[in-house]
Amino acid sequence: MTETVRADGRKNSQMRPVAIERGWSAQAEGSALISFGNTRVLCTASFTPGVPRWLKGQGTGWVTAEYSMLPRSTNERMQRESVRGKIGGRTHEISRLIGRSLRAVIDTKALGENTIVIDCDVLQADGGTRTASITGGYVALADAIAWARAEGHIAKNAAPLTDSVAAVSVGIVGGTPMSDLAYVEDSRAETDMNVVVTGSGDFIEVQGTAEGMPFKRAELDALLDLALVSAAELTLLQGKVLAEALAESR
Amino acid sequence: MTETVRADGRKNSQMRPVAIERGWSAQAEGSALISFGNTRVLCTASFTPGVPRWLKGQGTGWVTAEYSMLPRSTNERMQRESVRGKIGGRTHEISRLIGRSLRAVIDTKALGENTIVIDCDVLQADGGTRTASITGGYVALADAIAWARAEGHIAKNAAPLTDSVAAVSVGIVGGTPMSDLAYVEDSRAETDMNVVVTGSGDFIEVQGTAEGMPFKRAELDALLDLALVSAAELTLLQGKVLAEALAESR
Amino acid sequence: MTETVRADGRKNSQMRPVAIERGWSAQAEGSALISFGNTRVLCTASFTPGVPRWLKGQGTGWVTAEYSMLPRSTNERMQRESVRGKIGGRTHEISRLIGRSLRAVIDTKALGENTIVIDCDVLQADGGTRTASITGGYVALADAIAWARAEGHIAKNAAPLTDSVAAVSVGIVGGTPMSDLAYVEDSRAETDMNVVVTGSGDFIEVQGTAEGMPFKRAELDALLDLALVSAAELTLLQGKVLAEALAESR
Amino acid sequence: MTETVRADGRKNSQMRPVAIERGWSAQAEGSALISFGNTRVLCTASFTPGVPRWLKGQGTGWVTAEYSMLPRSTNERMQRESVRGKIGGRTHEISRLIGRSLRAVIDTKALGENTIVIDCDVLQADGGTRTASITGGYVALADAIAWARAEGHIAKNAAPLTDSVAAVSVGIVGGTPMSDLAYVEDSRAETDMNVVVTGSGDFIEVQGTAEGMPFKRAELDALLDLALVSAAELTLLQGKVLAEALAESR
Amino acid sequence: MTETVRADGRKNSQMRPVAIERGWSAQAEGSALISFGNTRVLCTASFTPGVPRWLKGQGTGWVTAEYSMLPRSTNERMQRESVRGKIGGRTHEISRLIGRSLRAVIDTKALGENTIVIDCDVLQADGGTRTASITGGYVALADAIAWARAEGHIAKNAAPLTDSVAAVSVGIVGGTPMSDLAYVEDSRAETDMNVVVTGSGDFIEVQGTAEGMPFKRAELDALLDLALVSAAELTLLQGKVLAEALAESR
Amino acid sequence: MTETVRADGRKNSQMRPVAIERGWSAQAEGSALISFGNTRVLCTASFTPGVPRWLKGQGTGWVTAEYSMLPRSTNERMQRESVRGKIGGRTHEISRLIGRSLRAVIDTKALGENTIVIDCDVLQADGGTRTASITGGYVALADAIAWARAEGHIAKNAAPLTDSVAAVSVGIVGGTPMSDLAYVEDSRAETDMNVVVTGSGDFIEVQGTAEGMPFKRAELDALLDLALVSAAELTLLQGKVLAEALAESR
Repeated sequence: MTETVRADGRKNSQMRPVAIERGWSAQAEGSALISFGNTRVLCTASFTPGVPRWLKGQGTGWVTAEYSMLPRSTNERMQRESVRGKIGGRTHEISRLIGRSLRAVIDTKALGENTIVIDCDVLQADGGTRTASITGGYVALADAIAWARAEGHIAKNAAPLTDSVAAVSVGIVGGTPMSDLAYVEDSRAETDMNVVVTGSGDFIEVQGTAEGMPFKRAELDALLDLALVSAAELTLLQGKVLAEALAESR
Repeated sequence: MTETVRADGRKNSQMRPVAIERGWSAQAEGSALISFGNTRVLCTASFTPGVPRWLKGQGTGWVTAEYSMLPRSTNERMQRESVRGKIGGRTHEISRLIGRSLRAVIDTKALGENTIVIDCDVLQADGGTRTASITGGYVALADAIAWARAEGHIAKNAAPLTDSVAAVSVGIVGGTPMSDLAYVEDSRAETDMNVVVTGSGDFIEVQGTAEGMPFKRAELDALLDLALVSAAELTLLQGKVLAEALAESR
Repeated sequence: MTETVRADGRKNSQMRPVAIERGWSAQAEGSALISFGNTRVLCTASFTPGVPRWLKGQGTGWVTAEYSMLPRSTNERMQRESVRGKIGGRTHEISRLIGRSLRAVIDTKALGENTIVIDCDVLQADGGTRTASITGGYVALADAIAWARAEGHIAKNAAPLTDSVAAVSVGIVGGTPMSDLAYVEDSRAETDMNVVVTGSGDFIEVQGTAEGMPFKRAELDALLDLALVSAAELTLLQGKVLAEALAESR
Repeated sequence: MTETVRADGRKNSQMRPVAIERGWSAQAEGSALISFGNTRVLCTASFTPGVPRWLKGQGTGWVTAEYSMLPRSTNERMQRESVRGKIGGRTHEISRLIGRSLRAVIDTKALGENTIVIDCDVLQADGGTRTASITGGYVALADAIAWARAEGHIAKNAAPLTDSVAAVSVGIVGGTPMSDLAYVEDSRAETDMNVVVTGSGDFIEVQGTAEGMPFKRAELDALLDLALVSAAELTLLQGKVLAEALAESR
Repeated sequence: MTETVRADGRKNSQMRPVAIERGWSAQAEGSALISFGNTRVLCTASFTPGVPRWLKGQGTGWVTAEYSMLPRSTNERMQRESVRGKIGGRTHEISRLIGRSLRAVIDTKALGENTIVIDCDVLQADGGTRTASITGGYVALADAIAWARAEGHIAKNAAPLTDSVAAVSVGIVGGTPMSDLAYVEDSRAETDMNVVVTGSGDFIEVQGTAEGMPFKRAELDALLDLALVSAAELTLLQGKVLAEALAESR
Repeated sequence: MTETVRADGRKNSQMRPVAIERGWSAQAEGSALISFGNTRVLCTASFTPGVPRWLKGQGTGWVTAEYSMLPRSTNERMQRESVRGKIGGRTHEISRLIGRSLRAVIDTKALGENTIVIDCDVLQADGGTRTASITGGYVALADAIAWARAEGHIAKNAAPLTDSVAAVSVGIVGGTPMSDLAYVEDSRAETDMNVVVTGSGDFIEVQGTAEGMPFKRAELDALLDLALVSAAELTLLQGKVLAEALAESR
């Protein structure tokens, strides 16, 4: 793989600066303001005892997610989906992806009959909003579970989290595989791939799309290599942020 | 008026700490993150050349506003209006109030055939979200107008802003008139009044509502007195923030 | 205050002819067809034993209101909100105002676990539809409460109505404060104020809006003076209409 | 056919008292408040020069209708369709029936490129609301056409109305065919038929429905006989009302 | 009645080739793919034990129907109603007609507290889709009832079907009454009539509409004559198809 | 990889019987009824000269797709999305996937300013509805393009199709990678992957999801191997069906 200098000077395998501010919200049971460069997403986790009617009495919990963009998070103002009166396909798709990704590291039996809703609201968008949402959403989720254990909603010895989860977008731009695409890169990528990875390095979701030319198996492999490296970096940062929170709480 | 000590130690006529961070958004033509205590609202102003079809060819501009709350800006998570598929009465009412209040200080002829949309998204709610939105919305609006003048969309000598505008909620709580009600105060107020005031100290909007007992004329007068004082403080702060921006831009 | 001759020959403090026909509907538990000049609103009160689910078991009743305009109540036909598939902001706002105003004179404990819905349908609109709705809505409400007491749904000695309520729109037109604005006046008013007043002369709601220039405190005071006089006249008429109904029923 | 005494003392072939008040609305180009006994429908005709986009340039006009019931026009309050956010099947069906029936007597070429919308709003419902709507709608339509001719929107010698139209509901109740069913009769009818008839006595629409037992051809014939008689009475009344209007206008 | 040669060579009283394939669906409790010439409708009957909440505990069942057209069942592609976000008036009207027609031959007491939903999805449309839906819907309904009896959901000796039902569209085209109109005939018919008839030859529904000129009573009679003949043919075919199914099941 | 015997006796790498009936619809410009075992999808391609407004004047065409399931295509009847008033997330997601996959083999310049809408309506669902839709959708698309060339809407020498496209679902069930999952397999798969492949064997889309345990890279590789084999079989069948059509048309 040739090393290209990217618009912002990054190396191909290099993510933008990532920051996670845990506990941003004074009201939510868990929260994190995450940024991947100029992309900023506010993730909150709302914990409620009890589950939706269709799950009652089964001893299992429920985790779901909703994604949304502020109307002026983008370069051009978008109409609000509440004003349009319906949610668009892209929003639905991303909300479902975030929910699936977070549920993949949840042991719903250990969670008990409790519900956690993760809201990911994009305050500013510059590519990678869905992967930032999953990565920040995990921190909010872990935060809420810690809260629920402290409050006695979850047993002290229960371990609802089976692993951690992080996500990164990778792509082929001008023939070169790159990690963590910014908007200008994403919009001219030939192939775009979102990869959701556990802390253990296994895959939860792989979504690769040819935006221009179909892609070859070797390209797919190169993209997966990049994604695993970046995801491992995110896993480290998530661990650090949560460890600090734990230290503070003692 | 007896002086009461309020839950957070404030005096009756005292506002919560107010902060305005102009230019929060890297993308919007104007923006401000405003906080009244724990209430935090992100205000963006989106400037577009041109006007809606029904205004074309009249040489006048258009300013409108949309208000929304993030689902977990409140103590209990609310359902998103995009998910419900319709905008509630309260949201409509506040969006219309913000729009009217900002238009009241705009000379639409001087604005020319340009449109500015002010989005006020409540990130965290603790009472006074509509008054914070108007106050912060004005800063975003002024910011966008400065941008548009610099970019040549508005003539150098045009003055679309005829005055500034700020808003405050006042109310009678436990028989005592108080300024800038926090949520715990607002929820047990007998009378709640939102007052929108120009920098010159005249009224744009007065909306007083008896939540419990009907209110007397003397009470109305006491509330207006408080509102004028607090609005003047906000006017000063708005001026300071915009002056600093001007200084930086030179 | 200078005395101006208005388009229809009225004095500034003079309301248009007001008529209230109690019992217009053969089916509703309470009803009134009210006219303020050419503005005609059909108000019905629907009484149902029981309350919405979220109020059950608390021993308190519920009063709410819905406002709507017939598509050709106006000079130009408007699209039906049922056809548009959603209710507009103005309709929501007025429905909420009517509901709040009527609830302000209801002792919900004395009402018991009963629900009253007030429907205000504008058959013809010529300014002041929301104030006519509140004034006529009160008569329909009182009518339904009398019915419910006669039918035994409310105890004979219970007094759910704590006062009466009437409303009037006042405004500054061409620099002069005037009462009960007709449409032609309203559309060129500099300031428009809707005032909801109890029979005892206290305020339930004060909503003043600068349509053109911001308004001064002295102007606000002059408008409130006018509103209190007109509201007192409406209170008298409401009392007369209800007294006649009582006389007939004996 | 046996002669039965009906609940309200009518003969089987007898309609309830029918009244038509032409020109009820001060704003609409044509209007009529029609009553069939306790059923009361406000019909307005809104005339607009021009036609919908898909008809432009063809030299033909457009007539359409909308039907709606006030929420408390019925014995039990119904939810508003604007609140439900959608129009029900019955409303759609009746609106389409009224529109088709009125268009059947319109020469759209003679109408020119003009649009007339007939709104039929049921103020009080006691059976026969759709037939009253068609019958009253015709008067409002004729009224609007007279207005349009007087205003010069339609040529003096053009004759957009090719005939008159009236409608009546007939049915078999307790084995006996009856005309103009009131709600108590309609709700226990075995067969219900709505018949729309021109002034010349031909059929525009025949809609017969077995509510209980299927009906025989002889029963169908008896119902059509009744319908033609009642429709002829309505035709006479329509003519009288419009003749009086013509006399007044001279 | 003159005998005309129709576009496809049929006689006036002749239906297009009719075919009914019972049991098309591997999943539904009852199903039939019916064709009237090029018109093809897939009818499925979904049987569920239990009834909607408002019917519970009354010992009666419920039968309802939904009609829909695939977007490209027609010559020009139509927008999906799911995409438009609402169901059009025509769809509502036809769904209601199918439901009423099928319920007319159901003894809901004998059905017991069970629900059957008939879905009629038009795969290809060439006139007569609603009459094909009723005719095929009956076969699916009878199929589902046989299934439910075999499964023990309905008592062996219960007879929920009181008769059979079939439907045909007839009309006057170029002055001549004709049966089973194809789309090209239907679109230029002066009068169009849908007639729903029981196996015993009585009427369930008669819906005649003047599309051009009003129609005379003699024309109505001629159309009914045609309809009864065609309906009798459909009844025979339905019986044959169901008899074969019965034979196979033994 | 161990060879397992599957519920229906298939080998792990074996698809269910696949059938494609080109030209099923008499009305659409292109169509195919495709079945993967019991899964049956009707795919139609609607060709219209011209493009949506936002594409006009750029000399490029537009291809889009809509996916929907009949309410009783599944084991339990689902509510229609038209009745719910909104399209669900899953439907949106699949429609977008089909559209992207087909556009990936379209040269929009060569297509010219023409629009093709592919409708994929699932008549019966037994797993793999989205992959059958893509595979059948391609045949309908190619069919419509052949029609458009024959009709002169596309130049004889233009080649809008750059390749063919087929799709298959693969997954890990009980630890074993398998191709073309039927519903019973899909519902208990640990990993589910939809793979869209060009006729040349390159990837257009790879969507792998861990339904239970996260999956390893080796598992991902095994699934891709299976998918490429099955896709090659589908490519062969598509080519055969289209070649026969070509032969017939000569």
